[in-house]
Amino acid sequence: MLPADATLRPIARELYASVRDLPIISPHGHVPPVWLADDVPFADPTSLLITPDHYVNRMLHSHGVSLADLGVAQADFTPEQSRNAFRILCSHWSDYRGTPVKFWLESELADIFGIDLAPSADTADQIYDSIAAALVTPAFKPRALFERFKISFLATTDDPCDNLEHHAKLAADASWHGTVVPTFRPDKYLEPARPDWIELVDNLGAVSGIATDTYAGWVAAMENRRAFFKAHGAVSTDHSHRDVRAERLPDAEAERLYGLARAASITVDQADALRRHLVFEQARMAADDGLVMTIHPAVYRNHHTPTFERFGADVGCDIPLSVEFARATQPMLEAFGTAKNFQVVFFTMDETTYSRELAPLAGFYPSVFVGAPWWFIDSPEAMARFRASVTEAAGFSKTSGFIDDTRAFLSIPARHDLARRIDSGYLARLVGEHRLTMDEALDVARDLVVGCPTRAFKL
Amino acid sequence: MLPADATLRPIARELYASVRDLPIISPHGHVPPVWLADDVPFADPTSLLITPDHYVNRMLHSHGVSLADLGVAQADFTPEQSRNAFRILCSHWSDYRGTPVKFWLESELADIFGIDLAPSADTADQIYDSIAAALVTPAFKPRALFERFKISFLATTDDPCDNLEHHAKLAADASWHGTVVPTFRPDKYLEPARPDWIELVDNLGAVSGIATDTYAGWVAAMENRRAFFKAHGAVSTDHSHRDVRAERLPDAEAERLYGLARAASITVDQADALRRHLVFEQARMAADDGLVMTIHPAVYRNHHTPTFERFGADVGCDIPLSVEFARATQPMLEAFGTAKNFQVVFFTMDETTYSRELAPLAGFYPSVFVGAPWWFIDSPEAMARFRASVTEAAGFSKTSGFIDDTRAFLSIPARHDLARRIDSGYLARLVGEHRLTMDEALDVARDLVVGCPTRAFKL
Amino acid sequence: MLPADATLRPIARELYASVRDLPIISPHGHVPPVWLADDVPFADPTSLLITPDHYVNRMLHSHGVSLADLGVAQADFTPEQSRNAFRILCSHWSDYRGTPVKFWLESELADIFGIDLAPSADTADQIYDSIAAALVTPAFKPRALFERFKISFLATTDDPCDNLEHHAKLAADASWHGTVVPTFRPDKYLEPARPDWIELVDNLGAVSGIATDTYAGWVAAMENRRAFFKAHGAVSTDHSHRDVRAERLPDAEAERLYGLARAASITVDQADALRRHLVFEQARMAADDGLVMTIHPAVYRNHHTPTFERFGADVGCDIPLSVEFARATQPMLEAFGTAKNFQVVFFTMDETTYSRELAPLAGFYPSVFVGAPWWFIDSPEAMARFRASVTEAAGFSKTSGFIDDTRAFLSIPARHDLARRIDSGYLARLVGEHRLTMDEALDVARDLVVGCPTRAFKL
Repeated sequence: MLPADATLRPIARELYASVRDLPIISPHGHVPPVWLADDVPFADPTSLLITPDHYVNRMLHSHGVSLADLGVAQADFTPEQSRNAFRILCSHWSDYRGTPVKFWLESELADIFGIDLAPSADTADQIYDSIAAALVTPAFKPRALFERFKISFLATTDDPCDNLEHHAKLAADASWHGTVVPTFRPDKYLEPARPDWIELVDNLGAVSGIATDTYAGWVAAMENRRAFFKAHGAVSTDHSHRDVRAERLPDAEAERLYGLARAASITVDQADALRRHLVFEQARMAADDGLVMTIHPAVYRNHHTPTFERFGADVGCDIPLSVEFARATQPMLEAFGTAKNFQVVFFTMDETTYSRELAPLAGFYPSVFVGAPWWFIDSPEAMARFRASVTEAAGFSKTSGFIDDTRAFLSIPARHDLARRIDSGYLARLVGEHRLTMDEALDVARDLVVGCPTRAFKL
Repeated sequence: MLPADATLRPIARELYASVRDLPIISPHGHVPPVWLADDVPFADPTSLLITPDHYVNRMLHSHGVSLADLGVAQADFTPEQSRNAFRILCSHWSDYRGTPVKFWLESELADIFGIDLAPSADTADQIYDSIAAALVTPAFKPRALFERFKISFLATTDDPCDNLEHHAKLAADASWHGTVVPTFRPDKYLEPARPDWIELVDNLGAVSGIATDTYAGWVAAMENRRAFFKAHGAVSTDHSHRDVRAERLPDAEAERLYGLARAASITVDQADALRRHLVFEQARMAADDGLVMTIHPAVYRNHHTPTFERFGADVGCDIPLSVEFARATQPMLEAFGTAKNFQVVFFTMDETTYSRELAPLAGFYPSVFVGAPWWFIDSPEAMARFRASVTEAAGFSKTSGFIDDTRAFLSIPARHDLARRIDSGYLARLVGEHRLTMDEALDVARDLVVGCPTRAFKL
Repeated sequence: MLPADATLRPIARELYASVRDLPIISPHGHVPPVWLADDVPFADPTSLLITPDHYVNRMLHSHGVSLADLGVAQADFTPEQSRNAFRILCSHWSDYRGTPVKFWLESELADIFGIDLAPSADTADQIYDSIAAALVTPAFKPRALFERFKISFLATTDDPCDNLEHHAKLAADASWHGTVVPTFRPDKYLEPARPDWIELVDNLGAVSGIATDTYAGWVAAMENRRAFFKAHGAVSTDHSHRDVRAERLPDAEAERLYGLARAASITVDQADALRRHLVFEQARMAADDGLVMTIHPAVYRNHHTPTFERFGADVGCDIPLSVEFARATQPMLEAFGTAKNFQVVFFTMDETTYSRELAPLAGFYPSVFVGAPWWFIDSPEAMARFRASVTEAAGFSKTSGFIDDTRAFLSIPARHDLARRIDSGYLARLVGEHRLTMDEALDVARDLVVGCPTRAFKL
């Protein structure tokens, strides 16, 4: 994963060596905190590596494999089915050529399990058995792996109404020395067009103890839950609406639309206007309480309705959409872009926005950071394009640092390792072309791993 | 056309050597079938290499040459004019630097005609005479070249009302062993806003023997002609509307709009809605009869009206447009995306859709393939960008294989050769960066030439 | 800034050596002509290198520095403040890593001032003093530098009502041998929605001596001023509207909307329609008088209103927008695209348009040239992407040549030098991949510096 070029390779190697063993900072991801709180051993190779990982599943599905055969949404998946799912993966291994999944999983096999076999129909059972044997040992329990992976900071993603009991348990556990914090993810509560919105907001009221039958109540309840999250260590809030626009309404209009939404009589256009206002309010709260916003808009979720109905969300049929940031974020940045406490990280899957909008925004607003390549594009070529597109107008220091954004706990080291390699390769080229000295490149390489996430997420 | 890097070049050479001599599969193009059916010798260098090739013409036009001087739409182009057109091309040869036309034409001169001269004002006549001398020999008749080019499969593009007589003649000819099949191209019959639509649909009725005065009749007539094409070996249907949306209307509404269109009283918006429905119906038929859809939307055809009026269509003034696939194809993919017989290949000239939409779609839907770089971007840099943008989310095996899409018969070997070189270079880099083993890369290289088009087009 | 690859580097070096010392043609920029007319020495390092350069300022601002501390819009900036601003820049020097500003400024220090220190908090004062000492010497006066920089052609950018006195003074000065011409920049007079439009157009009437109370008067006054500029050596007109559409209205409708605008009762939509018509009229005039149009649309100017209100325009908070050329320019190109005298250069900050629209347009229309990477993307990676995206459909010879577009006079040599290096690197790769011979590449390298701007701007 380092450049093949004979001039650049030794430079990249030296840069990579300097960051390879640095601890992992993971300020955004989807690891369930209960794993670490309760330190339960992982059940079996398939439920660990295949069933919950939409990166793995979607490729198999695209080659005609049913998600049911991979355990997705299967309540009673038998050991034999689990073994069979692993066979399916291994016999399709050649379909992963050129994808990052191949690197991640091969790294996991080699570096975590010490398995040196190439996955194939022939080796599937042997690999399965080796992993299964490891998973029952203490060294492969979540806490032991957390330590082995050298994760110095891990953020989970949590519902505003979550009681954060697992985070509390970890905090209260004197034998636990890791840092695991929640992230406030309020999307659902900001979408008045959702069929379950009224119920959700009722629950928000119940959990916060603040009635949410008025807009003012919603605001107070949100502030209450944000404070609760902050008290449990949260550093950021996470937002993913299809539309990125955030725009203030007059208070009276907000109150009026909120009333319509509560009465289930809001129109689609009104619901859009209210959502944009509620996102704007989140920005206003961020400027107050200092929680960093991460925004990653423009995904067509559950693109294939029959799959969603049978298998649920997050199973690999979300499709990125084109997006526009400059106009859409203008009202928010006009209001808070230079506010002292405000900070926002924009992530995208639409690479066209890198050089055109995101780098120019981050290269002007002190509050704006450009998020590292994310979902779908957290891969070698895309990461290289990111640096080549963003750096010239924003520099290195206004980028977020690598974000793994994963629920595949075991892939965390491989994902960060890949990012470090690609960044080392990019920096090596700048050194090779005399655009940076080696000292400067070494300094940047370290800053990308340590300084950038620390600044972007106020760690 | 292989990487210059000393590490990668030998790897690329070995990969390229392994695929260089494989037969050519050409599942989409515009070679007139009559050439092979009747095996008529080509007339002269200009009418073979310049006049019908909009790649060549448009560049000369952009440097101030009139299309008339190149023979476009000239009924009585004299031998002297033909020779003069060739002189114009050769004296403008430097303007083709950096374009694929230079590679294709120089390859044709060297590999097909054995001419080792660089085109220039000084060499124009000599080259012209050498080509002209070759064209009157048996070795340069279409069938001989077809065999020499090792074309194992060639699809032409044909009107639904075409009687396919040339395909029938070839099929009935015991001395002919090649495979040349038609492709069903129904665009015109799906555009109710066209001034000639009523007449076209009348003719569809006449040819199919099924009255097309109702929508139901149109459907039956279409199914009839698709079956006719399939019986003549067709494997795919080809669609190029400016808009890519396909969406079902209720039957009654479809019938109503169809009636308005037949009465020449349909509005622009209604015609859009009806077209989207008719395209959706083509997808429904594809799920039934199993013909693969190829869709390449979003071209502003005949951008310069005066040129269109004087010289007709397909003369080089079509301009690509930005396009959106994720939303637009959702209704079609929701309905047929996992249907057993359905398969669709999306081509684009808007490269932004590669990583953002097309690779994610092909990486989930078993029916979706990403088409290789097409028209305007069937060129070295663009092909390399294609692999780098598509592979990480879709792998290699959900791409279409190279499509030449050309009416320039003599350029077919050079075009496929170029694609094989660029893919070899890309794979060499993956090997050089230890992302693939050499064995894996050799396997992929062959699959891109043989397996991909075979699967994508159900050959 | 040349490729690191051992095969390509010597090729790139030879190509670069062949163009490195060619004179600079700068057909579009923002150097104030008074500097050369009056040959006043530069005041101090900060007011020369920092305050007026939004490339420098925006990055500092994005790291929390107030524009006020950099002298922006500060009437009474003291020498101590000036020195302090320079210290701020130097202590933030690491934030410029990977940006072209670093290359430009380091080149200026080394090549113009002979200063071999890396900027840092420690070296700030020493560098400041060295520059300040140089600026008071005759060798650093504007005219001396102009000569030293070997600028063979320099265009400034000027308001249509400007009396061009500085250009006239230079033309009348027998001791001055340089070529400095104005550029006609009429944007403000074409935006009827501007609050100051009536006043501007009144002034246009006063300056031209032609009453502008009617549309016909506006046209005549514009033609009058264009002729005045042409008489003073202007070769081009420059246009930057957010929207790129140009479209003719019927005369009566134009007259009607113009009347509404004059009466301050035009709606937003009507103002859009009128602007599009007025831009179309500029194209019509261009086809008549032969001045080349440069069009660079789609910028969200003054994105952060509080910054605009405090510091004014052009201070670094303009953000690029996505843009569409194919549809928007169709009416203009249909009317004038093949007209004998008409020429237009399209610049963009939306790189997606390179391969999709701009190269196809320039590869058909004799009048269309693709502008070199501009503002925000006049940087190594972006320049390389430009060649890789544009060349295959438009060739090299339909591009504009490098445009520095700068008000930072001292950066002009470094900017052109950077472009020559990047183009040499690109050409070296084509040679290394046997896509061009070395002779062809040498010819292209020279053409990019000399031939392209000469043809695109009719020099």
